[in-house]
Amino acid sequence: MTAPLRTQDTIAAVATPAGNGGIAVIRISGPDAVGVADRVFRGRIPLSSAVSHTVHYGSVVGEDGRPADAILATVFRAPHSYTGEEVVELGTHGGHFVSRAVLRLVIAAGARPADPGEFTLRAFLNDRLDLAQAEAVADLIHARSERAHRVSMEQLTGKLSGHIRELRSTLTDLCSLLELELDFSEEGIELARRDELLSKLSGVRERIQTILSRYSTGKMAREGVRVALAGKPNVGKSSLLNILLEEERAIVSEIPGTTRDVIEESITLHGMEFVFTDTAGIRESVDLIEKEGIRRTMQHIRKADIVLFMVDASEEIGKGEADMLEEAMNSLPKHGKSILVVNKADRKASGFSLPVIPDRPSVEISCKTHTGIDMLKSMLFETAIPDHADESDAPLITNERHKDALVHALESLDSAERSIQQNMSGEFVAVDLREALNHLGDIIGLTTPEDILNNIFARFCIGK
Amino acid sequence: MTAPLRTQDTIAAVATPAGNGGIAVIRISGPDAVGVADRVFRGRIPLSSAVSHTVHYGSVVGEDGRPADAILATVFRAPHSYTGEEVVELGTHGGHFVSRAVLRLVIAAGARPADPGEFTLRAFLNDRLDLAQAEAVADLIHARSERAHRVSMEQLTGKLSGHIRELRSTLTDLCSLLELELDFSEEGIELARRDELLSKLSGVRERIQTILSRYSTGKMAREGVRVALAGKPNVGKSSLLNILLEEERAIVSEIPGTTRDVIEESITLHGMEFVFTDTAGIRESVDLIEKEGIRRTMQHIRKADIVLFMVDASEEIGKGEADMLEEAMNSLPKHGKSILVVNKADRKASGFSLPVIPDRPSVEISCKTHTGIDMLKSMLFETAIPDHADESDAPLITNERHKDALVHALESLDSAERSIQQNMSGEFVAVDLREALNHLGDIIGLTTPEDILNNIFARFCIGK
Repeated sequence: MTAPLRTQDTIAAVATPAGNGGIAVIRISGPDAVGVADRVFRGRIPLSSAVSHTVHYGSVVGEDGRPADAILATVFRAPHSYTGEEVVELGTHGGHFVSRAVLRLVIAAGARPADPGEFTLRAFLNDRLDLAQAEAVADLIHARSERAHRVSMEQLTGKLSGHIRELRSTLTDLCSLLELELDFSEEGIELARRDELLSKLSGVRERIQTILSRYSTGKMAREGVRVALAGKPNVGKSSLLNILLEEERAIVSEIPGTTRDVIEESITLHGMEFVFTDTAGIRESVDLIEKEGIRRTMQHIRKADIVLFMVDASEEIGKGEADMLEEAMNSLPKHGKSILVVNKADRKASGFSLPVIPDRPSVEISCKTHTGIDMLKSMLFETAIPDHADESDAPLITNERHKDALVHALESLDSAERSIQQNMSGEFVAVDLREALNHLGDIIGLTTPEDILNNIFARFCIGK
Repeated sequence: MTAPLRTQDTIAAVATPAGNGGIAVIRISGPDAVGVADRVFRGRIPLSSAVSHTVHYGSVVGEDGRPADAILATVFRAPHSYTGEEVVELGTHGGHFVSRAVLRLVIAAGARPADPGEFTLRAFLNDRLDLAQAEAVADLIHARSERAHRVSMEQLTGKLSGHIRELRSTLTDLCSLLELELDFSEEGIELARRDELLSKLSGVRERIQTILSRYSTGKMAREGVRVALAGKPNVGKSSLLNILLEEERAIVSEIPGTTRDVIEESITLHGMEFVFTDTAGIRESVDLIEKEGIRRTMQHIRKADIVLFMVDASEEIGKGEADMLEEAMNSLPKHGKSILVVNKADRKASGFSLPVIPDRPSVEISCKTHTGIDMLKSMLFETAIPDHADESDAPLITNERHKDALVHALESLDSAERSIQQNMSGEFVAVDLREALNHLGDIIGLTTPEDILNNIFARFCIGK
């Protein structure tokens, strides 16, 4: 975006997905939206005399007088529109060429092609949405599972924003008291009792910590649970993957446009997406005993939310494999989760014994007879979301920007508490609280710098 | 379609293209459209109390009470809708998952998933569109070039239908006179003078012939001009194709979902699509002197609208190549068009002479220096549409079904003329005229059998 915060001009874009379908919608927003539309629209009445939220049948006509399409024009009068500006939506036939032809006429009539996310940016600048809600719009559009859908809807309808506003309101009250106190500092009046202050701050801290503690759940809901399959060649990793995909693929195969760069295969369990990533060492026959194989597998494992370590019960586990397993499990980050999958359990070798790995759940399966597969699926789900039964009132955060803002807010609150405990002047405490307020304000976009806004909206598609 | 002519139930589908975008539209049509929508919609007022052509903000809510999306619902009251039925359109966020989630709720609330083209079928059955116009809807959506766009819009706005109705009106008048005459047959009264009858029939015949004569232009406008590149290996066919694609590709590359089965590469010249088809013998190094190579090339050539025969000016043309060229050109159907392309004209061999092929346009080019490429493009366009300057008032037909119906109508008129010339009773003439009327009626769907309707609408996408 060259100059993202302009809102004086009128922008237009095809808002529906690319490709052919029954209907396409061209969205026009800005002070001259109705004027632009009327320059190309021929209906019973000009749109300039249309009431807000009404639909009008007519044609879009080019300079040569030929109709480019028969359309329905919907008028939204400011501020009662998505962007808060004057908006006209043209419902054209859903062909790629015809919708672009109509867009060209709209541009020729005085609109500027919209940048990615620019409609939502305008909605944010015009206070139709706060920043967390605007981000939820993009999340909702990209949701690929029920969970992702649900958490983005919660955020869009203001659950997170509401909590943030409440926390800010508490802090603002405390801050105001402290600042008022400064006016009376010569009199030495203490308006905010320090023990009450500490207790209220601790309440805010706790609520922030509760929200933070659910970040990984929220992130997995939004992005899917990353599952790495690890184990030596021929242990049955690709058989297992095929079984899972075969049983669950129908749910995900209808999603077009999934980026295939990183995501290899994904399935949905209980509305949660599980993404099985594919790197060398997992699906290729890399000998894991080899240094390079181990190095690559470790790298891969560290990126996963869950690691499935797979062993073959039809043969004894050798020293090399056992060492590898131990090293791999020890390399998991402290929040790392794993399941030991014992394959070929239907043909267990007499000398087979499970490697001793404390506190790691394990399951016996057979890719041949499909024994244990349902159990493995349940374990995958339980491992990903151990607190899934916890219908906490706290909002789920799904996004690193929000997490970082909360962490920074906590740091400022820590500092405020220290200042109080060290009996420092209310001035210092107030400065810390103002910082915490700013960090919280970043989440809903009260204080967010322009370059961060640009980054956020540049990730949107054009037309939103 | 299992039972396509049902219109008593309420149908629903996502009407916008698949994939992610800003907006998706779910269309609901049928007697209970408003009821179905109200079962999932929560807004300021129920849609049942909404006026036609008004838009209402609200949520779609699932059985668990959770909002599945924040949407805009537009109400169209019968018969003032696309289908002529009660229609509600739900504008959801444009994510693939979220729009399908909303559709699932709509289906659960009592709508049936729509079959391909079923909305337009209903529009046709409810006389909102005639059949030629309904076919134009599909053509418009699939248009990939300005010409395809224009001819489908002409057909959609009723140009062809209007002409057909005029022709039918003339024939109906004649028929009525003849049939009235039969009532007075005992008196021997001749209400329709035979010379006038013949003159009027000949007028109708001429108009049909004019329309028929432009079929190939219409077909090329709709489907693109099929161009075959022929010539021996290394003559520069792929270099030429690359040059054309490089210069024109930008125009077509933005079209997603192009079927790659038959179409190999396409470019747009003056708003007309040219499709370069790819078969063995053209892009592979098949020796054209070989029998099999010749056979395959011939087969390919016969399917093309234009054949570019390419020779290499940097060497003499051998007997084999000259024979092949002659045979190929002779094999072209009588409407077949070709251009002889003399490549490597910048390095012409001293002994080079053009093969003697009468009445075939030729052009010298160099793929190295790009000489002659613009000339070749102009020739391609002129060859495809020699009558492009002819802004005839006659409608363009683009579709084999319409052509066949017109040919059959002509046959019936021929038969009528013969009967008149043989002084046969008006009864026989009237029968022929009724047949012609039926054939013309097929075009606009007055008399079209159900199985043909099914075929036509099954080619539509779902949601239209």
